[in-house]
Amino acid sequence: MADKVVLYYFNGRGKMESIRWLLTVAEVEFDEVHLRTREDYEKLLRDEDLMFEQVPLVEMDGMKLIQTKAILHYIAGKYDLFGKDLKERVMIDMYSEGLIDLMEMIMMLIFTEDAAAQKENILNKAKNRYLPVFEKVLIDTVHLVGGKLSLADVLLTECTLMLEELFAGILGDFPNTKAFQGRMRLIPAINRFLLPGSKRRPPPDEVYKNTVMEVFQVKLPSK
Amino acid sequence: MADKVVLYYFNGRGKMESIRWLLTVAEVEFDEVHLRTREDYEKLLRDEDLMFEQVPLVEMDGMKLIQTKAILHYIAGKYDLFGKDLKERVMIDMYSEGLIDLMEMIMMLIFTEDAAAQKENILNKAKNRYLPVFEKVLIDTVHLVGGKLSLADVLLTECTLMLEELFAGILGDFPNTKAFQGRMRLIPAINRFLLPGSKRRPPPDEVYKNTVMEVFQVKLPSK
Repeated sequence: MADKVVLYYFNGRGKMESIRWLLTVAEVEFDEVHLRTREDYEKLLRDEDLMFEQVPLVEMDGMKLIQTKAILHYIAGKYDLFGKDLKERVMIDMYSEGLIDLMEMIMMLIFTEDAAAQKENILNKAKNRYLPVFEKVLIDTVHLVGGKLSLADVLLTECTLMLEELFAGILGDFPNTKAFQGRMRLIPAINRFLLPGSKRRPPPDEVYKNTVMEVFQVKLPSK
Repeated sequence: MADKVVLYYFNGRGKMESIRWLLTVAEVEFDEVHLRTREDYEKLLRDEDLMFEQVPLVEMDGMKLIQTKAILHYIAGKYDLFGKDLKERVMIDMYSEGLIDLMEMIMMLIFTEDAAAQKENILNKAKNRYLPVFEKVLIDTVHLVGGKLSLADVLLTECTLMLEELFAGILGDFPNTKAFQGRMRLIPAINRFLLPGSKRRPPPDEVYKNTVMEVFQVKLPSK
């Protein structure tokens, strides 16, 4: 029997949150080890657990997996969330890359000096570059690719919820996407994940920000 | 019969260069359409060829593929350069993600204000974070994963050549990696690609930089 999946990351969303989402939808149970201090990180480095000295790290199936996207692809491949052939897979991959680009912008907001300008930039890109793509696909389909739940659907659900946290009502102009999100929320595993007390992490706060900066020994430019 | 593969990008390396490398190793012929002006880019936007308004764009197998990594994965999957099972694939994906991180740092150097400091940062990361990983794997293997040529080998070859352009002799401390590069250079398709007149692009220069900035209408912060 396979050992339990263990995630090593901060006690916050960051790059791990999409992995939490995907494992949840795949109905894979996981434990978490949270990095709280520089010493926690240095221990992982000393143990040579981090191939490129970076987290996320996921222990799974006897492997120490690193690199967020590689981990997402592995889970999606294993749990049949990555299409039935190469052509479906490349569509899922294209949508997923776009959604991760957008979510990374949101993720970095708390570390950004001029957060107001960057928030405006994210809103602009979300409304004009990203959401219209999904809105159009979802005119006549339940899922983004192949008539079946995939990694791309999970990431779009996560991303639209992040956008709504920042920009209430943003999906008003994107009714198909809003309806898609509503359908996804009815999936029992997602429904449970959205309830208080689940492993879903809250939006980043000052504690999260300071922990990340201490662990990685980074200093933001002062204003 | 499938139509010929067509790449839409600047006449320079950037994010397209790894795709050129991979197609070359897969022995797939391709044509290129180079973006030279803002108008070239706006035409692609008007034709709705760019899903997220970004290049690279690759026309292939009746699809308009975007997002560099999605394109690389599709080509690697199609031409048997992505491992024989999920466990090999995730290793190839992990190595590839790390190599792309490093190459993206090099790629951005020409657009960086404090290029000397960033060059030092790249050298440090290459020598301490990235190359030691590959050096260790290559102690007793010919290829990085599964005893067989893969996407990861192609990217490591490209990346080591980029590093040597910037830091002559950097592979002196990494003899296994240097020997690997030497073996890869003997592959006939790679050997031809490295000769003058091939579709391999030279390192970025001011013309490339100015074209990218004009096409995307970006301004660098002045010093």
